Amino acid sequence: MTETATVPVGELEAGRTKLAIVMFSGTADKFIPLGVLAQAGAAMGLDVSVFVTGFALRAFTKEHPALPFPAEFADMAPALAQGMEAKHVAGWDTMLRQAKALGARVYACSMMSEVLGLTSGDFDDLVDDVVGAATFLQEAEDAETFFI
Amino acid sequence: MTETATVPVGELEAGRTKLAIVMFSGTADKFIPLGVLAQAGAAMGLDVSVFVTGFALRAFTKEHPALPFPAEFADMAPALAQGMEAKHVAGWDTMLRQAKALGARVYACSMMSEVLGLTSGDFDDLVDDVVGAATFLQEAEDAETFFI
Amino acid sequence: MTETATVPVGELEAGRTKLAIVMFSGTADKFIPLGVLAQAGAAMGLDVSVFVTGFALRAFTKEHPALPFPAEFADMAPALAQGMEAKHVAGWDTMLRQAKALGARVYACSMMSEVLGLTSGDFDDLVDDVVGAATFLQEAEDAETFFI
Repeated sequence: MTETATVPVGELEAGRTKLAIVMFSGTADKFIPLGVLAQAGAAMGLDVSVFVTGFALRAFTKEHPALPFPAEFADMAPALAQGMEAKHVAGWDTMLRQAKALGARVYACSMMSEVLGLTSGDFDDLVDDVVGAATFLQEAEDAETFFI
Repeated sequence: MTETATVPVGELEAGRTKLAIVMFSGTADKFIPLGVLAQAGAAMGLDVSVFVTGFALRAFTKEHPALPFPAEFADMAPALAQGMEAKHVAGWDTMLRQAKALGARVYACSMMSEVLGLTSGDFDDLVDDVVGAATFLQEAEDAETFFI
Repeated sequence: MTETATVPVGELEAGRTKLAIVMFSGTADKFIPLGVLAQAGAAMGLDVSVFVTGFALRAFTKEHPALPFPAEFADMAPALAQGMEAKHVAGWDTMLRQAKALGARVYACSMMSEVLGLTSGDFDDLVDDVVGAATFLQEAEDAETFFI
């Protein structure tokens, strides 16, 4: 169904079936687990929702600013980029689009958008809606939750 | 009931009703999602508990030291502070007090407190108790969990 | 059963009994909560699994490279190290071994291992297996989840 999924869609049917990710971090490295967890979860048949807030919001604007690398691992940036390319690992946005094609939803945090002066028209099409934290928490009820 | 809640208290009754946050990070930005998630969760009727450890412990002492900004986003600090003020966003401690008024509990990590030479008398009144990780995990059983 | 456990093994039997940790961060400080949560969870009788990825992978190689300290808290590194020693806090790897003796499992992320040019032979014996994110998510179904 997708390039990286290894578990058949729909295999997980019993128990909890939601995966909710709060994406706050804005450094480039953290977008890899966002893409991987969202894509793998959606491919497994989990109901995936992502709440984008904090510094991560900028990455979802039409401007697509370059994402900074964490200061402590700056020396690893070239090797990481080369390894991603050599192993043909999809970019985080591609993985997130795969997740969305399988039903995942991406929300921008309304409060932080206001604080940063961003409106819904500023976001690219990865963002489905701009909502508040309470709305997201309600949707995430009974989910496996990650704060990245 | 509070300024930022958009979901009526008690609306979520079925399923899981706990929200447990491990607050480890000590940079200023991460205290915003702590306040927002705790306040929104408590306003929704979730049973919220916060376990403060690591670098975050210093922010809960009576000294209230200035919190550092993450190195990678230092250029965004002024705009973020101005946006928070312009949009009248409550400070993280105000949001956490609102959460506590709705039943949220805040615990300081006993092990890390000892390591940093802090005793219960060093913490401000946001902290309800000093407990071990096992006690927190026991209270957090069956919760939506975030590590910030 | 272990030095730091304060809750009898097996006390938690009802409800959810899984604790799943995604360990991504590579700075030295974040390995303390990894060890503490894994050890405390395993001692409580929780079914603990850890998925190591990102910059954290290097810490699990036989080379055992020195782990960087977060840039914002460099001034706290000596006090933290002295406090850990003075209070006889076990190192993160010792705590993780205690968790494993109680049944915890540690997996290295197959995709990120490939990207960083690491094979199963490069990891030390803390790592039980090299698996994909989907496999981990499947094992983590219905767990309390932390992203460190």
